[in-house]
Amino acid sequence: MAERTKAHELAEKQREISVSEFFAKNRHLLGFDNPRKALLMAVKEAVDNSLDACEEARILPEIYVELQQIKEDRFKVIVEDNGPGIVKEQIPKIFGKLLYGSKFHRLRCSRGQQGIGISAVLLYGQLTTGKGMHVTSRIGPKHQAHYFEIHLDTQRNEPIIREDKTVEWKREHGTRIEIELQGTYQKGKQSADEYIKEIALINPHAQIIYKTPEKETLTYARGVTDLPKEAKEIKPHPYGVELGVLIRMLQSTKAGTISIFLHNDFSRISPQLASEICEKAKVNPRARPSTIARDEAEVLYNTIQSTKIIAPPTDCLSPLGEEASIKGLKKEINAEFYCAATRPPSVYRGNPFLIEVALAYGGSLEKEEHVKIMRFANRVPLLYQQGACATTEAIIDTAWKSYGLNQSKESIPVGPVVIVIHMNSVWVPFTSEAKEAIAHYPEIIKEMKLALQEAGRQMASYIRKTVKAREQQERVNLFEKYIPELASALSGLSGEKKTLIEEALQKVLKKGLKELLAEVKEAEKTEIKGKNVAFGEKQSTLGELDGV
Amino acid sequence: MAERTKAHELAEKQREISVSEFFAKNRHLLGFDNPRKALLMAVKEAVDNSLDACEEARILPEIYVELQQIKEDRFKVIVEDNGPGIVKEQIPKIFGKLLYGSKFHRLRCSRGQQGIGISAVLLYGQLTTGKGMHVTSRIGPKHQAHYFEIHLDTQRNEPIIREDKTVEWKREHGTRIEIELQGTYQKGKQSADEYIKEIALINPHAQIIYKTPEKETLTYARGVTDLPKEAKEIKPHPYGVELGVLIRMLQSTKAGTISIFLHNDFSRISPQLASEICEKAKVNPRARPSTIARDEAEVLYNTIQSTKIIAPPTDCLSPLGEEASIKGLKKEINAEFYCAATRPPSVYRGNPFLIEVALAYGGSLEKEEHVKIMRFANRVPLLYQQGACATTEAIIDTAWKSYGLNQSKESIPVGPVVIVIHMNSVWVPFTSEAKEAIAHYPEIIKEMKLALQEAGRQMASYIRKTVKAREQQERVNLFEKYIPELASALSGLSGEKKTLIEEALQKVLKKGLKELLAEVKEAEKTEIKGKNVAFGEKQSTLGELDGV
Repeated sequence: MAERTKAHELAEKQREISVSEFFAKNRHLLGFDNPRKALLMAVKEAVDNSLDACEEARILPEIYVELQQIKEDRFKVIVEDNGPGIVKEQIPKIFGKLLYGSKFHRLRCSRGQQGIGISAVLLYGQLTTGKGMHVTSRIGPKHQAHYFEIHLDTQRNEPIIREDKTVEWKREHGTRIEIELQGTYQKGKQSADEYIKEIALINPHAQIIYKTPEKETLTYARGVTDLPKEAKEIKPHPYGVELGVLIRMLQSTKAGTISIFLHNDFSRISPQLASEICEKAKVNPRARPSTIARDEAEVLYNTIQSTKIIAPPTDCLSPLGEEASIKGLKKEINAEFYCAATRPPSVYRGNPFLIEVALAYGGSLEKEEHVKIMRFANRVPLLYQQGACATTEAIIDTAWKSYGLNQSKESIPVGPVVIVIHMNSVWVPFTSEAKEAIAHYPEIIKEMKLALQEAGRQMASYIRKTVKAREQQERVNLFEKYIPELASALSGLSGEKKTLIEEALQKVLKKGLKELLAEVKEAEKTEIKGKNVAFGEKQSTLGELDGV
Repeated sequence: MAERTKAHELAEKQREISVSEFFAKNRHLLGFDNPRKALLMAVKEAVDNSLDACEEARILPEIYVELQQIKEDRFKVIVEDNGPGIVKEQIPKIFGKLLYGSKFHRLRCSRGQQGIGISAVLLYGQLTTGKGMHVTSRIGPKHQAHYFEIHLDTQRNEPIIREDKTVEWKREHGTRIEIELQGTYQKGKQSADEYIKEIALINPHAQIIYKTPEKETLTYARGVTDLPKEAKEIKPHPYGVELGVLIRMLQSTKAGTISIFLHNDFSRISPQLASEICEKAKVNPRARPSTIARDEAEVLYNTIQSTKIIAPPTDCLSPLGEEASIKGLKKEINAEFYCAATRPPSVYRGNPFLIEVALAYGGSLEKEEHVKIMRFANRVPLLYQQGACATTEAIIDTAWKSYGLNQSKESIPVGPVVIVIHMNSVWVPFTSEAKEAIAHYPEIIKEMKLALQEAGRQMASYIRKTVKAREQQERVNLFEKYIPELASALSGLSGEKKTLIEEALQKVLKKGLKELLAEVKEAEKTEIKGKNVAFGEKQSTLGELDGV
C-alpha cells in the first residue's frame, strides 16, 4: 500500500494561499491594473473612507488630497480628513490587513463595504516601492495623535508595525495617510482629477482641496451645509437570506427560541408573524435555534419564502433626489434640456435599493457620438469597466429610438446626451473587488430600465416638441434653395414656364410646412409624419421623369 | 483621557472578515450570479479540475458529467474522471477551503490557477441547499477508494468532515464529486450544454460523456489520442517581478548568496549574468539575501530592469496551432472560408503568453448580425462577461472595414463571421475570480490585435477575390434587367431609336464588367475601383437628364 502515485506527487504541491498573496498576484482585481489607474484607486479608497467616517460621525467633511511626484513613475499620495479618527489599537489592522473592517457585516448605505480598499492601497504601494503606509490619527482634543508606519505581511495577511509613536498634530480629530506608489499622472477621463471632480459633484456637502502633481491647488467648495440624511442600519430581510445563511444564523444566534430569533434577527417579522411561521412550518416556537436540523431548517426556509412579508424598510436609503440631480448636472454639463427620475425603492436578494437617472440633452453636446454615461454607486463615481456594468446593459436594452436617439442593435445610443445613473443600496453588488461595475442582477437591471424609460419619455417629449420641428425647418430651408434649379430643369423638360413652376413648388412647400408645424404641435406621442411633406429625399427620379 | 469618542464606537464594529464569508456574500464574484449560471459554473469548475489533473498525470481523460433534476430549481451535479485521484489527507481542504491548491504558486499553463473554483461550488451548494459535497477518490489499484462528505465552515474558512470512510469503487483511479445546488436548466448560449460542447471542441484528446437533466446521453468522442504537449513549469522571469516581490523573495529564499539566488530563483539569469548584475548594483554577490536592505533591493531591482535579459522560455506554452484551430472550427461552423493565425510568444509582467485567432467567413453565417465571438483561455471556453474582456476591446479596436466588414465606431463589427480567440499563458489575468474575462493588459491587447489583423488580412483577401466580384456581378445582372426600361426612357427624351440605345448600353456594360473582373484579379491590396463601372447607385439623375 505504500506505493507512491502521481497523486502523492501532486499532494506535495498543495498548500494554502493567503488572501494577500492572492490579491498581490491578482492586483488588477483590486483595480491596480496599471500605474495611471493605481493613482486614482489610492485617492479613491482613501477619500471614500474619509467620507464614510465623517458621515457616520455626523461631521461635515473637509478633505485634503495631495499628489507629489517623486520621480517619473513614482508618487506620494496624501489624504487627510477631519473625521472621527481611529482608535490606536485598530489602526494597524484597518490599514495593514485585507478583509478587515466595520462595514462588511452591516446592512447600511456606505461607500466602502468590503474591508479591502485601503489595505489594498498599502499592498500595492509596498509591492511597487517596498515602502509602507504612514498613518496619523487622532480621535479628539483630549487624546494624543498617533503615528504609525505599517507594512503588510502578505504570507500571513497581518500588519507589520515598523514605527508607532505619539506626535503633535494641529487637528483635533481626523486621519492622515501618506503612501508612495508606482503611478503615472495623466489628466482627463478616468483620472484622479476626474474622480475628485465627480465625487465633489455628487457629495456637495464635502469640501475638498486637491493639490495636483503640478502643484496647482483646486478647491471644491461646499455647495450645501446639510449632511446627507443619516444612513440607517437595517437587519436582513427574510426574503434575502439563503438557506445556508439561515442555518448558520440558527447556529450562532443569541436568541433563546426560534420565535425570538425570527423576530429579533430579521426585519419585518413581528412576534405574531413569527408564531405564524413556526406553526406553518411545524416547528416548536420555543425550540432552541441551535437544535434545528437541516431538514427542519429547509421547511422553515420554504415557509418563510411562501409567507407574505412586507418589503424591507426603505428609510435606510438616501437618494440624491430629482432636483439635486438636475442641479448637479446643470453645474457640470452645458446642455439645453435636463430631466431626472428617481424610482421608488425596490429589493434584490432582500437588500433595499433604488435607482436614479438624470439626462442632459443638446446644447454643446456632440450629436454624432455615443451618449456619455456617468455611473455612481452610493455617491461614488464608477470610472472603469463600463462595459461590464449592469447600467450599460440597462442602457443598451432600452429602446432609445422611441425617445428620439439613434441606436444600432445591442449598442449604446448615439446622440447629444449625458446619462447619469445612480444606484443607492445597503449592499451594492460589484462585479469585482475594485468596485468598478455593478453586477447583473435582473431586479436591478429592471429598475434601471424603468428609470431610464421615465427620464427618456421626458426627453422624447422635449425632442418632439422642439428639436424635430427645428430640424424639419432646416430641411425645408435647404430645399427652398434648390427650387430655382429644379424649376428650370422641369421647365426644360415640360416646356412650362419656369416662374409658374417655381410658384407652384413654393406653394406646396409653404402648405407642407404649415401642416407640418400643426402636426408637430398635436402629435406628441406618435411618430412624426412630416417626413413626406418635406421632399427631403432624392428618390428614383428616373421613373418620375419618365412620364413627363 | 478616558473620554469615549465616536472613534471608540466605530472600533467596536471593526472585525476580521473570513474569505469564505466574503465570497458567500459576493458569490457573483465567483460566477454564481443566478441559478442558470450556477449550474454551468459547477460543471465547469469540476471538469476543468479533471482535465488539469489528467493532463498533469499524463492520462487521456475520460470524463462523465451528469445533471439530475431533483425539483424545479434544484439539481444534483455529478462529475467523475479517470484522473490520478487525490490523497486522502488532501481531499477535505481541496474541496472545503477557499484559496487552497497546487496551482497558485506555480507558473504553468493550467485551467485552474487560483485554488478557489471547486470549493466555491461547495460554498454555493451549501448556501442554497444546506448540504455538503460528496467526494470519492482513489489514487491507484493498490489503494482503497475514500469517500467523504464535506461541508465548509464559512466563519473560519475550513472544511468540516461529516463522513469519512473507505468504499468499493470500480475505477482503479479517479475522482467523483456529487453536489446538490439551486439551479435552473436551460439550453442554448451560456448553458452547461454549450460549455461541454466547447470544451470538447478545444480539448479533442478528452472523451466526455454527458447525461443531461432530460436524461439524454451525449457522447463527445476523442478526436485525437495524443495528449497536448506537457505544460512545463517555469521560474519567474526577472522582468515580471515587482520590487515588493523581490524583497519578499530575498527574505525567504533558500539560496545562501545573492548570486546563487539570482541564478536559481529566476529564469534566464546565468551565473555570469548574476555576477554582472551584482557588480552593476554594487551589491556583494556573496552577501546573504536576507541581509539586503530595502534601498539596496531597490537598486538591485532597477539594475535588473535595465539589464538586457533574454525573454522567458516559451516551451512552457502549448498553442492549439493554426491547423488544429481551423479543423476545430470546420467541425463546428458551416462557413465558406476559414483561416487562422498563431502569434509568436510574448511576455506581460514576466509571464509568457501567446494569442491565437481563427476566423470563419460566409456560408450559413448571418450577414446582418454582429460577428460571433468565441473566447478561450488555456483551452477553457469563456461564456460570460464578453463586454469586460480584453478580447472584446481588441476586436473593437481593430479596423474591420479594411478587412471587408461593416463596423460602427467603438463597436463589434457586423458580418457573416465567427472569431475564435485563444490566450495561452502560464498565468491568465482574469477580471474576476469567476475567470470569465481577460484583464486589459496593454501587452495582451496588442498581441490580440496583431493576431486579429493577421487573420483579418487573409479574410479580406478572400473577400476581395471572390465575394466583392460576386456582389458586383449581382449588381450588373440587376442593372441588365433595367436596360430596356432605361433605353425606352432615353429614347423618348432624345428621339434616338430604342434598340440602338439598348445595344450601346449593353456594350458599355460588357466592357465595364470585363475591366472590372480584370481589376479584381489584380487589385488584391488596394480598394476596388469597379464601383464606378457598375452604375449601381441611383444618383443625381436630375442633373444628368437635364442636359439630354
